Amino acid sequence: MGAIEKVLSRNLIYRGKIIDLRIDNVQLQSGRKTIREVVEHEPAVAIIPLTEKNEVLLVRQYRHPLGEDILEIPAGIVEEGETFRDTAERELQEEVGYRPNDLVEVGKFYTSPGFSDEVIVVFVARKLVPSILDGDEDECIEVESVPLNDVPELLGSGKIKDCKTFAGLSWLLYKHSRREI
Amino acid sequence: MGAIEKVLSRNLIYRGKIIDLRIDNVQLQSGRKTIREVVEHEPAVAIIPLTEKNEVLLVRQYRHPLGEDILEIPAGIVEEGETFRDTAERELQEEVGYRPNDLVEVGKFYTSPGFSDEVIVVFVARKLVPSILDGDEDECIEVESVPLNDVPELLGSGKIKDCKTFAGLSWLLYKHSRREI
Repeated sequence: MGAIEKVLSRNLIYRGKIIDLRIDNVQLQSGRKTIREVVEHEPAVAIIPLTEKNEVLLVRQYRHPLGEDILEIPAGIVEEGETFRDTAERELQEEVGYRPNDLVEVGKFYTSPGFSDEVIVVFVARKLVPSILDGDEDECIEVESVPLNDVPELLGSGKIKDCKTFAGLSWLLYKHSRREI
Repeated sequence: MGAIEKVLSRNLIYRGKIIDLRIDNVQLQSGRKTIREVVEHEPAVAIIPLTEKNEVLLVRQYRHPLGEDILEIPAGIVEEGETFRDTAERELQEEVGYRPNDLVEVGKFYTSPGFSDEVIVVFVARKLVPSILDGDEDECIEVESVPLNDVPELLGSGKIKDCKTFAGLSWLLYKHSRREI
């Protein structure tokens, strides 16, 4: 590879609540100049909570950009001073009311590499102990428990509309089918 | 569910090349008012090309928001007048040089439901016939062929950093392990 683009200038045009927007002027290897739009977002985590009964705990919440509520694995933005693990433990307590005694990282992905730097670290959480923390006052979340045996149908039928959730649950199914998780 | 937020006003603050940015004022069920930031993006498709030798064709490209090049399944934005299938067929020819005689939809996901309406439809493409279309002049893409047997290591070792790619390949592995694909 080597198609590194030369950055000619960076211009922050919006500083917001959960995102900032930057427009960069770049020069391609061909010499051609163009712009690149970058939505800056803090790093985030997502957690697949798996109970001892092999149930996955999902959260249903209204997502304003979509105009509908969707099922997702619990997730949230890393706050100042937190490690990814800290955030996973906090969000799990805020959104589903459990603290995990077993927390394993599954992967780290960019959600929209074409226009955003948002990165999300996904964990599997097991050995769950009831423990509640107050959550974000702007969020309204309902927890739904889904047996692992029902997850293939959930994925295959289009009921999971969130990419990180589809990624995490597909990987869990694959690893579980090989008895590796 | 029912936590529908009442939209008080919508304000388009940036109209760009691949994204627009809208700031909406909303009222929550609690009565509290807040803002929601929405990055508008055209729908997109992604394609998992699987050869008769059970190799997956991935593309490596520099992503300016990340400052690095990453491995992804081929993908692109739906252009005016195209169906999702049309876009999948066009992008596959532009990015890897094949036309699929078998194209099956895997799923449809939102990439960042917290702040964007971007939706991506993922296909598995088989029965590939060489066929090249000229691509986007701002893109510089290298094709890498990966045996399906090597995909678990690729996913487990953190080498796949793109969420749609991790989602598509995990699902493919799971279905393939069950001989359903």
